[in-house]
Amino acid sequence: MTVDQFAIPEGYAPFDADSLRAWLAGRDACAGRLGGKPEQWDIAEIGDGNLNYVFIAKGPEGSLCVKQALPYLRMVGESWPLTLRRAHFERMALQVQAKIAPALVPAVLDGDETLCCTVQEDLSDHIIIRKGMVHDARVYPRFAADIAEYMARCLFMTSDLHLPLPRKWELAGDFFGNHNLASITHTIMFNDPYVESANNHWNEPYINGYARRLREDVELRRASNRLKTMFLTEAQALIHCDLHTGSIMVTEDSTKVIDPEFAFCGPMAFDTGKLLGNLLINYFSHSGWEDEPGGRDSYRRWVLDTSKAVWEKFEAGFLALWRDPAVAVGDGYPAVLYADAAGKAELERAQHEYMAKLYRDTLAYAGLFMIRRLVGIAHNIDTKLIEDPRRRARCEGRGLQLGIELLGGPEGFASLDAVAARAEQIEGAEPALTEE
Amino acid sequence: MTVDQFAIPEGYAPFDADSLRAWLAGRDACAGRLGGKPEQWDIAEIGDGNLNYVFIAKGPEGSLCVKQALPYLRMVGESWPLTLRRAHFERMALQVQAKIAPALVPAVLDGDETLCCTVQEDLSDHIIIRKGMVHDARVYPRFAADIAEYMARCLFMTSDLHLPLPRKWELAGDFFGNHNLASITHTIMFNDPYVESANNHWNEPYINGYARRLREDVELRRASNRLKTMFLTEAQALIHCDLHTGSIMVTEDSTKVIDPEFAFCGPMAFDTGKLLGNLLINYFSHSGWEDEPGGRDSYRRWVLDTSKAVWEKFEAGFLALWRDPAVAVGDGYPAVLYADAAGKAELERAQHEYMAKLYRDTLAYAGLFMIRRLVGIAHNIDTKLIEDPRRRARCEGRGLQLGIELLGGPEGFASLDAVAARAEQIEGAEPALTEE
Repeated sequence: MTVDQFAIPEGYAPFDADSLRAWLAGRDACAGRLGGKPEQWDIAEIGDGNLNYVFIAKGPEGSLCVKQALPYLRMVGESWPLTLRRAHFERMALQVQAKIAPALVPAVLDGDETLCCTVQEDLSDHIIIRKGMVHDARVYPRFAADIAEYMARCLFMTSDLHLPLPRKWELAGDFFGNHNLASITHTIMFNDPYVESANNHWNEPYINGYARRLREDVELRRASNRLKTMFLTEAQALIHCDLHTGSIMVTEDSTKVIDPEFAFCGPMAFDTGKLLGNLLINYFSHSGWEDEPGGRDSYRRWVLDTSKAVWEKFEAGFLALWRDPAVAVGDGYPAVLYADAAGKAELERAQHEYMAKLYRDTLAYAGLFMIRRLVGIAHNIDTKLIEDPRRRARCEGRGLQLGIELLGGPEGFASLDAVAARAEQIEGAEPALTEE
Repeated sequence: MTVDQFAIPEGYAPFDADSLRAWLAGRDACAGRLGGKPEQWDIAEIGDGNLNYVFIAKGPEGSLCVKQALPYLRMVGESWPLTLRRAHFERMALQVQAKIAPALVPAVLDGDETLCCTVQEDLSDHIIIRKGMVHDARVYPRFAADIAEYMARCLFMTSDLHLPLPRKWELAGDFFGNHNLASITHTIMFNDPYVESANNHWNEPYINGYARRLREDVELRRASNRLKTMFLTEAQALIHCDLHTGSIMVTEDSTKVIDPEFAFCGPMAFDTGKLLGNLLINYFSHSGWEDEPGGRDSYRRWVLDTSKAVWEKFEAGFLALWRDPAVAVGDGYPAVLYADAAGKAELERAQHEYMAKLYRDTLAYAGLFMIRRLVGIAHNIDTKLIEDPRRRARCEGRGLQLGIELLGGPEGFASLDAVAARAEQIEGAEPALTEE
């Protein structure tokens, strides 16, 4: 049943402002939201991503955002084709999540399978949290609670803890076609940093020693491959699959998770770990940004406290759903097995074991993502934009030190407190840079 | 994207001999194989299963088998609806397997999505191996090697060890719609025997003690639920999912695995364990069949030797595929990670660990299936047809004893030799029956 995933639908064309204006004029839901006449609408392409066009349209009465998939990697051009089907999967994921966590995802207003576009709520008043965290060291007081709730609800409610077998399998089946980007990125994540690969790059010569260790330490290869096997085979819940700080938009009192175009049913720890790894990279980046040593000390503390709070609130929220007999109705741990006294104790034990494994895997994935963003194909702006290479390398080396420890030995960290304490210890010492 | 899985296609009707004759006459591949004129064809319904019609059509030049899904459980009637889509999944699974192990599955000659039927090679010269093993204590010299090859090839070639991520995910997606029967049977397998359930029945009063132990020992519930979690979430390979001795047809020199209508991408150990559990139930059944004590000693020995050989040949065949660089081309353990000396050693270690886990899970699933077939909703003819209840109970009790040990403590059995030794020990002792 293999379909040609790179087929371009008959009638597909990338929008420009004029063609988008004409298309929106013909969609009642969109035209009504914008109000006035099409010629009054202000339309601008604002995408800075690699894969899509993002237009904001503003009318007299309201605004909206149109995201359209492009059939190739925008930064490379037509030589790197990308499936347009991802627009379908993104819209489907947003629609699933809108039922589960409506306040935490952009509302979907419209969409078109041929044009591979989704019309969403305009979030122009929000900012990508990564930018706020890097450039402005901005505190977002709601962020930890909101993102923890997003993860707890979206992961629990699409898992076998909530869904009966038929609905879970339908959900998994609906998303297994979404493999084009997974196929590209899984190599970059799980293989490249651990071998010689033209995709890798790092801050030479300073990071050479860390990069060599990654290629030579076979236990890291083993740890990465265990996580890859989970990614390839463990259909645990509908995961966002790109849940880093670049996929989260915030204001002081709102959090929205965007861009689930890689979504599929995979391991929960992939989402929780990717987010944690991105927060920890941010933590180590501030010595490259602060105006004077210690200038961002209190922000650094906030980032660590937030990392810890995200996990703790996630765990509490997830367990609260599991302990609610009206919500924990899936086939995974059915009430019938845990009704008697021995069963009640067994369920508590099972919950503890489940969360402990999820915690360890979260740390391991966090380490994996830190490594991949510090020596792999694409680096985070958190470090990439630090101008002085040696100063940048001190941030990167520290991130790699913790990343390697988390990937290789998550069981050494009994709690997020232990992770935070180790992060502070690493931050307070000099990393092992390779000098010229 | 939920479809109405119980919808009956417009134009579907169960065949009778006349309507089947007319249909076959219109299918060139079928009419050509049968030869002669339709009125010369001899058509008989021979199904003894619960879910389907099975017709054999014989013509002057050849014969064929038509399997048609019925929209309800045949033994219960229209009150227990079953999806007709399973015919689609069965044909799709047979077509996948025909490319992988053509000699070991029935050839698919034709099929129809509306009539929910598959036309297959006629295997009237074969016998269901379970019948041969129960009634005739018949030895099948090719069986162990053939079924081991079937499992090794079908599991390996549909796993991430052979398939790149996109093809594996397409395959998994194609089969996740096949959840109707899984949804019914997973309750019977993983939940019912461990709680009070109207679905359970057993040979009372003799088996009461074993049945009570299954309900009271919370560690067995835990072990069963671990296997269920794998079943629900671990898309490891395309599994047959009903690979017991009733799904295998044999002659002295041929083995064919039929009826993959439950197929989906799940844990390999489900197949390997179901088969092993069924062989072990057969082993314990012979004291209920032999004309005098010890009369089937040599056959019992053959069954145990076969159980052992099936695993050992499966493991050897699976590893041979994995060690062939032209075959082990999947994304699971890619060559790029294991090219250097440390990598080579690591791959050997990973293979050893992979097979050791698969072995332990195979034993645990074997125990689960033995239990479910001795106290659950449906019992195997191996024991069910033994007339004297007390004599039957001695077979059942021994099977339950080993089943409980395998499910609860697979790590206690270092090899199939240890399993065989324990089986012989249990066979040589009196089971703990509950007397009136």
